[in-house]
Amino acid sequence: MRITLPDGSIREYSQPVTAGQIAAEIGPGLAKAAIGAKANGQLVDLNRPIDRDAAVQIVTKPRVGKDGRSKDDPSPDALYLLRHSCAHVMAEAICRLWPAAQLAYGPPLENGFYYDISLDEPISSQDFTRIEQEMAKIVAEDRPFKRYELPPDQGLSKLQAEANKYKVDNARRALEAGAGALSWYVTGERGRDWEDLCMGPHLPSTGHISAFKVMSVASSHWHGDVTSDRFQRVYGTAFFTQADLDHHLKQLEEAKQRDHRVIGQKLGLFAIDEQVGQGLILWKPRGAMVRTLLQEFLQKELFRRGYEVVYTPHIGKIDLYKTSGHYPYYSDSQFPPIKMRNGEEEYLLKPMNCPHHIKIYASEPRSYRDLPLRLAEFGTVYRFEQSGELTGMTRVRGFTQDDAHIFCTPEQVKGEFRTTVELVQFVFRRFGFDDVSIRLSLRDPGGDKYAGDPALWDRAESELRDVLREMNASFTEERGEAAFYGPKVDFIVRDVIGRKWQLGTVQLDYNLPQRFGLEYIGADNQHHQPVMIHRAPFGSMERFMAILIEHYAGAFPLWIAPEQVRVLPISDKFDAYGQRVLQALRGAGFRATLDDSGDRVQAKIRVAQEAKVPYMLVVGGRDEQAGTVAVRDRSRGDLGAMPLERFIEQARVEVESCGEQCVTV
Amino acid sequence: MRITLPDGSIREYSQPVTAGQIAAEIGPGLAKAAIGAKANGQLVDLNRPIDRDAAVQIVTKPRVGKDGRSKDDPSPDALYLLRHSCAHVMAEAICRLWPAAQLAYGPPLENGFYYDISLDEPISSQDFTRIEQEMAKIVAEDRPFKRYELPPDQGLSKLQAEANKYKVDNARRALEAGAGALSWYVTGERGRDWEDLCMGPHLPSTGHISAFKVMSVASSHWHGDVTSDRFQRVYGTAFFTQADLDHHLKQLEEAKQRDHRVIGQKLGLFAIDEQVGQGLILWKPRGAMVRTLLQEFLQKELFRRGYEVVYTPHIGKIDLYKTSGHYPYYSDSQFPPIKMRNGEEEYLLKPMNCPHHIKIYASEPRSYRDLPLRLAEFGTVYRFEQSGELTGMTRVRGFTQDDAHIFCTPEQVKGEFRTTVELVQFVFRRFGFDDVSIRLSLRDPGGDKYAGDPALWDRAESELRDVLREMNASFTEERGEAAFYGPKVDFIVRDVIGRKWQLGTVQLDYNLPQRFGLEYIGADNQHHQPVMIHRAPFGSMERFMAILIEHYAGAFPLWIAPEQVRVLPISDKFDAYGQRVLQALRGAGFRATLDDSGDRVQAKIRVAQEAKVPYMLVVGGRDEQAGTVAVRDRSRGDLGAMPLERFIEQARVEVESCGEQCVTV
Repeated sequence: MRITLPDGSIREYSQPVTAGQIAAEIGPGLAKAAIGAKANGQLVDLNRPIDRDAAVQIVTKPRVGKDGRSKDDPSPDALYLLRHSCAHVMAEAICRLWPAAQLAYGPPLENGFYYDISLDEPISSQDFTRIEQEMAKIVAEDRPFKRYELPPDQGLSKLQAEANKYKVDNARRALEAGAGALSWYVTGERGRDWEDLCMGPHLPSTGHISAFKVMSVASSHWHGDVTSDRFQRVYGTAFFTQADLDHHLKQLEEAKQRDHRVIGQKLGLFAIDEQVGQGLILWKPRGAMVRTLLQEFLQKELFRRGYEVVYTPHIGKIDLYKTSGHYPYYSDSQFPPIKMRNGEEEYLLKPMNCPHHIKIYASEPRSYRDLPLRLAEFGTVYRFEQSGELTGMTRVRGFTQDDAHIFCTPEQVKGEFRTTVELVQFVFRRFGFDDVSIRLSLRDPGGDKYAGDPALWDRAESELRDVLREMNASFTEERGEAAFYGPKVDFIVRDVIGRKWQLGTVQLDYNLPQRFGLEYIGADNQHHQPVMIHRAPFGSMERFMAILIEHYAGAFPLWIAPEQVRVLPISDKFDAYGQRVLQALRGAGFRATLDDSGDRVQAKIRVAQEAKVPYMLVVGGRDEQAGTVAVRDRSRGDLGAMPLERFIEQARVEVESCGEQCVTV
Repeated sequence: MRITLPDGSIREYSQPVTAGQIAAEIGPGLAKAAIGAKANGQLVDLNRPIDRDAAVQIVTKPRVGKDGRSKDDPSPDALYLLRHSCAHVMAEAICRLWPAAQLAYGPPLENGFYYDISLDEPISSQDFTRIEQEMAKIVAEDRPFKRYELPPDQGLSKLQAEANKYKVDNARRALEAGAGALSWYVTGERGRDWEDLCMGPHLPSTGHISAFKVMSVASSHWHGDVTSDRFQRVYGTAFFTQADLDHHLKQLEEAKQRDHRVIGQKLGLFAIDEQVGQGLILWKPRGAMVRTLLQEFLQKELFRRGYEVVYTPHIGKIDLYKTSGHYPYYSDSQFPPIKMRNGEEEYLLKPMNCPHHIKIYASEPRSYRDLPLRLAEFGTVYRFEQSGELTGMTRVRGFTQDDAHIFCTPEQVKGEFRTTVELVQFVFRRFGFDDVSIRLSLRDPGGDKYAGDPALWDRAESELRDVLREMNASFTEERGEAAFYGPKVDFIVRDVIGRKWQLGTVQLDYNLPQRFGLEYIGADNQHHQPVMIHRAPFGSMERFMAILIEHYAGAFPLWIAPEQVRVLPISDKFDAYGQRVLQALRGAGFRATLDDSGDRVQAKIRVAQEAKVPYMLVVGGRDEQAGTVAVRDRSRGDLGAMPLERFIEQARVEVESCGEQCVTV
């Protein structure tokens, strides 16, 4: 039996071996940090015997820094083990406190876990401390998670005897999905301690859990069906250190303050209307101004980099999407087709822009001299997210991609990829996202599901890697994570409060050019197939806007603030001077307004401050005589009086240099 | 019996009187020019007795100028009489030449008329002269058009005896639609001369027809149903003078040269793809560049005039359109609803932007201080035109309106209307459309179908009229032509070859604010209903683009030319200098390219000329030494060598002043 480790070394065993044993062989440090393993890509318990050839990777706890926080981000696998195990601990604690509770289903989530519980007595936030105290006891007991399996019949009989219909149903579903046996995890000793029907895997023992919290409780239903049984869904979270948990809680608090839905409403940036439809964004004037400025900024960069703008319709015949392969395979996430009255034609709301851009490529004969052809569009696409998944501007049903497709020769891939990465980085810097991580997704070398010539793949993958290295970009490589149609690069940024967002993406595509039979005449006078590159630095204008709102907490930097300057006369007497100041500002190209409401100046300042206007120019009698303005900055406060011209000059410099320095935390 | 004339004067008659008699009483000039009349808005024969109180207006032939052309545009009514009569003359001529011909239906059209004929023997363009010769004979005979009527039974028996099933069907349809009797028009004397089942009216006699032409023949079907009988549709046209006809034919020839479908294809401006769908425009890079420039131009003007841009989705729940009244009443011209899988929700592709803008208005409480609120959007809407009606970019299924909705108080209507008209005029001047006619559509004072307070209507109508007068705009008033929801103003421009296009529109709306319950708090602290103004200077970007392509014959003026300057090195040796010239041009903001194809310079010039590039800069050795360029203008030819800086300066001036002077005919 051959065990291949991540460094390529191979160990031979004649008996089944556990990942824990392998870790111990490698060294005591690894053995101590180990909490689970991946065997042939599947996450398993540290003490689960491995009985055939496998590529094995040990999953470890993160190292802890001096500040008590994890030094590196814990891997998603480590967090899965931690949170899944903590869900069991919470469930056991709840069963101790409410013996009548019936458990249904308790998965880990991106930032925690939940457990759905059937119980007549309501669990409220006042119970959270009690639950946490019970959990702390279980953790202190450091009981092991032990797996046992039963054959289907025997397992089902056991569950039926226990009279929990949800678990019986879970077991039936697992067996239908192909499970050969049913498995339980006991927290301790079988027959004595608490146990749960569970596929696993788990941490070695409860003692590995160090920081956890019960977060909230909500109502839910059996498989989300509102006509079915009602549950209490108790949410919790867990981290490897208390400092990590504290940081997370602080971040949540900060995120709440920055919630784009709340700020968007308060600042009049966007609206969602039930009669228009959920997940469909109405960009109100102030939000639309920011979007327009973002689009103008990007369009200027695209123009400079040789892109050409196109406009395409928002629908296409269903046949177009059959050719592209997007229909019927993705029809669950699309709006249903529009069926014409003649019963023959059907149209789809476009779920992406590529087929339309391909049709523009194909609308005339192309020669190698026409390439690369870079077609860009702020193209609005429609996808059908379930209503439960819709959130403000981040999860929507219609969104505008800052989309472009580059059609090029295989020889041009490297150069195009480089300029695309440079564009993405340029764009991110402009918004103060200076912590950007890059993920290069390559194909599984053994896989055979990939479209396009393997030689092209090899070349492209090494070229992408070379470009990232030449640019001194730090990046991770993910084998087997490429799309079937080509390798790709994703960009993940960290916002001011440390949250990570996946933004830009660059994807090579060998598949669509083939499906649509695209070609160009090469220098050799022969027909060749172009390569397509899909790319979008923002991704979606809606989602990017939401991220910017939260990143800036609504206080947009001067260059994209919908209202840049507000003139506040200290009384009606100076409205005329205020009007002159306003005209001078507008003449200089600023988005400025005048508050001639007649309110007191303190009230005017408060209103402007709430509207997050970057600069307030307070003007009175002395200013009128001297041609000055008293400048107030929304974050730095009063900056004193200065000649209007000087303010204009300073503001102009700020607009132009803004990207490097002006993130308001 | 009281007859009211257009000047308000009233004549009393005790007996039925014809419009011909009235005209004769007024004067011999009018009697001579009279060819028909309008009685209470209905077009009637000049010799048709009027037997009740009526407002009567005499329809006259246009006066003829020294050049033989009509001095004023003939009224649509006069042209209707002429062309409907000429259709009869052509039908009679065809019946003489092909006695087996069965007539079906022969209406006048905007630019002529046709007659659908059932005949086994094919009529070809070689027969047109024969037909015209027969028609000339009938015209020379100057036979009167005489009407007679029969009661339904008697009329149907007559038609059945004549065994023309199409006419029998026409008669049945007329009776079903409420006709009390059937009418025939005899060209001459009943029983002796040719006659046709016809509602009329007609010219007094064939001698009033002076210039006509058989234009073309096409295949058609009974009521457009391809499964039904097939006809030969013979098209003709007629004008009041030979010079008018000649002018029309010349214009048709010019229009053919300028056909936007041909030029659009040749210059790579747009494409239509069968797999995307008919009537759905793919804006290719060069066309999209023109559109972007048009939008930027307009957006700048909107910003200057206090509009605020919004973005809204391209779909809305069907409930939205039930509230607005657009569904189900207009569902024939819309794409069918998207029916969701749950069977509950339905969405419509938006046929207009107003409901979405209304929702933005309604998304927060509004005070009189917030008004006027001017929401603008380049909003793409979708309507379902029949495929037979689709034409290039002029009749499409998806189009982008340069739309805006102004929400204002009744007191603000006048000011908003004025600035809107100014904007429309400003826009038209920029494209050299200096012949603009304005049509003010008012309500029928007796009508009761109108939404909104009659006092508001009175006030708005007189304000609109006042504004147009104050602006010294020439305009016509059309009583009874207002929409039920408010008065409106349409702008009709004449292009360089004299064709008229309806472009901009400004419409007041009292209806939608009511249907959606819009309100604002007035200075009196009470709730009030705002007035909406719908307006679009271009109308649709697609249609406006088509008009511009034909107006300029593809030779866009410098400021909107997709490619402004092309640098043509006379040989490879000067490509490097050409590259420097190119960079200087781009640095100065010009859309410039370099032809380094290695072709001979004459070939490069020919290609650039075909691409309608405004300026070609030919560069060679002497230029490189002197820093000059040899400038070639696409219409004026060689302009000689000049320093590059001077060219840039001149071109910059041309871009900025372009609107006033640079229409290339």
